[in-house]
Amino acid sequence: MAPPIDRSQVEKIVREIVVQLLGGPKGKPELVVSISARHCHLSQEDVETLFGKGHQLTPMKPLYQDGFYAAEETVMLVGPRRRMLPSVRVLGPTRSRSQVELAFTDAISLGIDAPVRPSGKIDGTPGCVLVGPAGVVDLKQGVIRAERHVHMNVRDAEYYGVKDGERMSLRIESGFCTTVYEGLLVRADATSKLEVHLDTDEGNAADIDHAVRVELFKP
Amino acid sequence: MAPPIDRSQVEKIVREIVVQLLGGPKGKPELVVSISARHCHLSQEDVETLFGKGHQLTPMKPLYQDGFYAAEETVMLVGPRRRMLPSVRVLGPTRSRSQVELAFTDAISLGIDAPVRPSGKIDGTPGCVLVGPAGVVDLKQGVIRAERHVHMNVRDAEYYGVKDGERMSLRIESGFCTTVYEGLLVRADATSKLEVHLDTDEGNAADIDHAVRVELFKP
Repeated sequence: MAPPIDRSQVEKIVREIVVQLLGGPKGKPELVVSISARHCHLSQEDVETLFGKGHQLTPMKPLYQDGFYAAEETVMLVGPRRRMLPSVRVLGPTRSRSQVELAFTDAISLGIDAPVRPSGKIDGTPGCVLVGPAGVVDLKQGVIRAERHVHMNVRDAEYYGVKDGERMSLRIESGFCTTVYEGLLVRADATSKLEVHLDTDEGNAADIDHAVRVELFKP
Repeated sequence: MAPPIDRSQVEKIVREIVVQLLGGPKGKPELVVSISARHCHLSQEDVETLFGKGHQLTPMKPLYQDGFYAAEETVMLVGPRRRMLPSVRVLGPTRSRSQVELAFTDAISLGIDAPVRPSGKIDGTPGCVLVGPAGVVDLKQGVIRAERHVHMNVRDAEYYGVKDGERMSLRIESGFCTTVYEGLLVRADATSKLEVHLDTDEGNAADIDHAVRVELFKP
């Protein structure tokens, strides 16, 4: 029998894999690649339905971008045909509309045909049922696979010669699992830190845990 | 609630996604990209332990390579800490040694740190417990993530200018999930058909279901 590992625990929260560029030129921004495990964002109204009237999310672990956190709270997701994921992490702070972000492997296991969307663009997407300790939310839409993307501030964008809304590529060098992800959406603003967001399918396909080098580039 | 889909059923067997090259040059070999869901190969001895003395595997669906098939038989996999996958397809014919091929997402859910290996190279890999209707096999080694690879015959190898054991790249064009997989191991022999084998993490990361074009090339 194989020795148990802790990666299964890690899968339960959003995790950050910091793959630093070795020997990059001076002035090159430090690049962080984060793997988002399945998670959801909730409206305050849905927080109160799921966890009780007046309930506020409890920050458990800060995320790399300032002001965002993995919360103590988790919900159960139930798909059609009553297949379910028992414990999906809630990220804070709350948003105007609730949203569930799954890798395709997760979505297939739930029986949901999740479309690839940028965060927040959930019109016309499928829904699911959220179950919390105090109640149930029948989410009519909001289940997506988050489109791969890279956060950055305007100085980083200038360094790479890209603008908000453009597309970049990321090469992850990792033995015989080396992979190039094209089409990363650039989300540039005044304050974000340079960070690529991939999901667990993307992280696992590229064996990100054994990556020795990552390169972000304009195609 | 979202309408149910059948992809979850599809995940249970090895599936073949045929993405044909559009408008390729004359004489270019037809390329098939197959996504292998988690599966196992069994020795005849283990077949008999799991399914009963004298039992022979029952072919259910032929695979793309001649002589290989998905069998009617499935087994339960049990990992450390007793987490399990209830129904993993057996592929035939039998082999000299049993072997379990998982995507990293599957391996993580079982709690097994599966190494990336070419099929058959299982020395020193972790094991797991296989449970069948007639008995249990405590597999001491054999759990791997199969190294991405491409089968071909010697004429295809000549067309691409590669030799058995060399490495190629595959670009899957699929909207904003477009992905290049490097490091595909070339397995060339006299009779195989041209076919790339990826696992479900790789297929899902690249959204292979919506692929519009695939390109195999020597880097």
